[in-house]
Amino acid sequence: MSVNRKLTELIKPVEGAEARVIEAMRYATMVGGKRIRPYLLMNSAAIFNVHDEYALRAAAAIEMLHCYSLVHDDLPAMDNSDLRRGKPTTHKQFDEATAILAGDGLLTMAFEVLSHPDTHPDGDVRAQLCHALAVSGGANGMVGGQMIDLLAENQQLDIGAITRLQRMKTGDIIAFSCEAGAILGHASKEQRHALIGYAHDLGLAFQIVDDLLDAEGDAAETGKPTGADAAAGKATFVSILGLDRARQQAKLLGDQAKAHLEIFGQKADALRWMSDFVINRKS
Amino acid sequence: MSVNRKLTELIKPVEGAEARVIEAMRYATMVGGKRIRPYLLMNSAAIFNVHDEYALRAAAAIEMLHCYSLVHDDLPAMDNSDLRRGKPTTHKQFDEATAILAGDGLLTMAFEVLSHPDTHPDGDVRAQLCHALAVSGGANGMVGGQMIDLLAENQQLDIGAITRLQRMKTGDIIAFSCEAGAILGHASKEQRHALIGYAHDLGLAFQIVDDLLDAEGDAAETGKPTGADAAAGKATFVSILGLDRARQQAKLLGDQAKAHLEIFGQKADALRWMSDFVINRKS
Repeated sequence: MSVNRKLTELIKPVEGAEARVIEAMRYATMVGGKRIRPYLLMNSAAIFNVHDEYALRAAAAIEMLHCYSLVHDDLPAMDNSDLRRGKPTTHKQFDEATAILAGDGLLTMAFEVLSHPDTHPDGDVRAQLCHALAVSGGANGMVGGQMIDLLAENQQLDIGAITRLQRMKTGDIIAFSCEAGAILGHASKEQRHALIGYAHDLGLAFQIVDDLLDAEGDAAETGKPTGADAAAGKATFVSILGLDRARQQAKLLGDQAKAHLEIFGQKADALRWMSDFVINRKS
Repeated sequence: MSVNRKLTELIKPVEGAEARVIEAMRYATMVGGKRIRPYLLMNSAAIFNVHDEYALRAAAAIEMLHCYSLVHDDLPAMDNSDLRRGKPTTHKQFDEATAILAGDGLLTMAFEVLSHPDTHPDGDVRAQLCHALAVSGGANGMVGGQMIDLLAENQQLDIGAITRLQRMKTGDIIAFSCEAGAILGHASKEQRHALIGYAHDLGLAFQIVDDLLDAEGDAAETGKPTGADAAAGKATFVSILGLDRARQQAKLLGDQAKAHLEIFGQKADALRWMSDFVINRKS
């Protein structure tokens, strides 16, 4: 997929003594993954006929941010995960200090890419991209969500608290992926809000399906141990709603997500497809 | 100092469950410190009569970035420091996971502040600020320098290698502090390069004085244990050059830094003062 090529191009190997951190950054972004955020960004941008190169650079930036969050989340002090998608996590493959720095480097590079003139000729667009990413990724977004998640172990969260947690932890960045397409495309306020609405419903559906897969999935298919949430005493959508209602809720959110896309007609078909994919995925 | 007020204003306490990470971010920025980077930014901006509020916001952003780097550098997997300026480091005051997240949050917020319209009405200026910060702070700047530093323990670095290390680890961000003033002030290329030249000499002088204070300073005055570099088997400017030549070299760099400022006349007096302060400081 072209975003992989762009990531490899942007995270250039170097000769200097700092080579190790750049190797770790490349490793962390090359582990694979579904590339859902880049897909959303590319296909949101396509609605507005955004130049491919602009969208691709922004897509690489959002994937850098996503991968930084995985590297830091996997650290011993956080989720303490040894494997991700069947491969050693970055701190296992390198070491903890290198993983911390690689995460910092990826987070920083996401902003470097977004603010570079090659991403859009209009400085105001670039500044808007940086600002939207920082808000979604910061202490009132992803970082805050991760904090809540860490504090939530063995706590009885209600459905409101867990929805807020997931909206911050994963939803805001998924929303950014769609919003970035709108920013690059000089979309109207109405169009921008429609995409953000779509993304928030999609993000929540995504998380519920994640919880369902954790509760009932096949470890070989999902590539990670199942039942981990229950073992950790974590409240999830499934532990609160039960399997059946969680499944219904995911389906409902998927339909709701698609309803936001009406104003775009056929141009949003790829985003509709993603909604179906998210609901029906088995891993 | 007004940058403290701006930091307190920008890192707003919240009511939600994520409050802890924001408390940790506030703690990490309020430990004190010399605020050299904000000083450089404010006084570089003043040369071009930049609006105080713009400079102050950018100054707060650079201090956020600096403090994030301290929080992550102090972590057990990195320098494993329990104290900073006589107070518990962030992971000691809170915990390791919170400190990792607080660092991530501060790094992200630095870009949020720089890209916000309140920092400058011209989007191109904001994008330039974000880009310059990302380059200075990333894998080819501060993060790369930190990687080299970690790998350098018990290695015999020569003077070229250690100069490059320090330029990346601390010099690039000091240079950004001055460059940001120039960007905010729509400075000419010549003016911008003069300020960057000043900052690079100043940054190196600063580091040599740091090594001198570590080798011969008084722990009560510097607020940190002395002789730590030698104990860690770290090559420093002092271990390579010896005390006398290191002292001469710092003085030379201080003078060289000031020579870059000639084109600005009296308007750069505050920056000249900083050069003298850096050379003569006792802590």
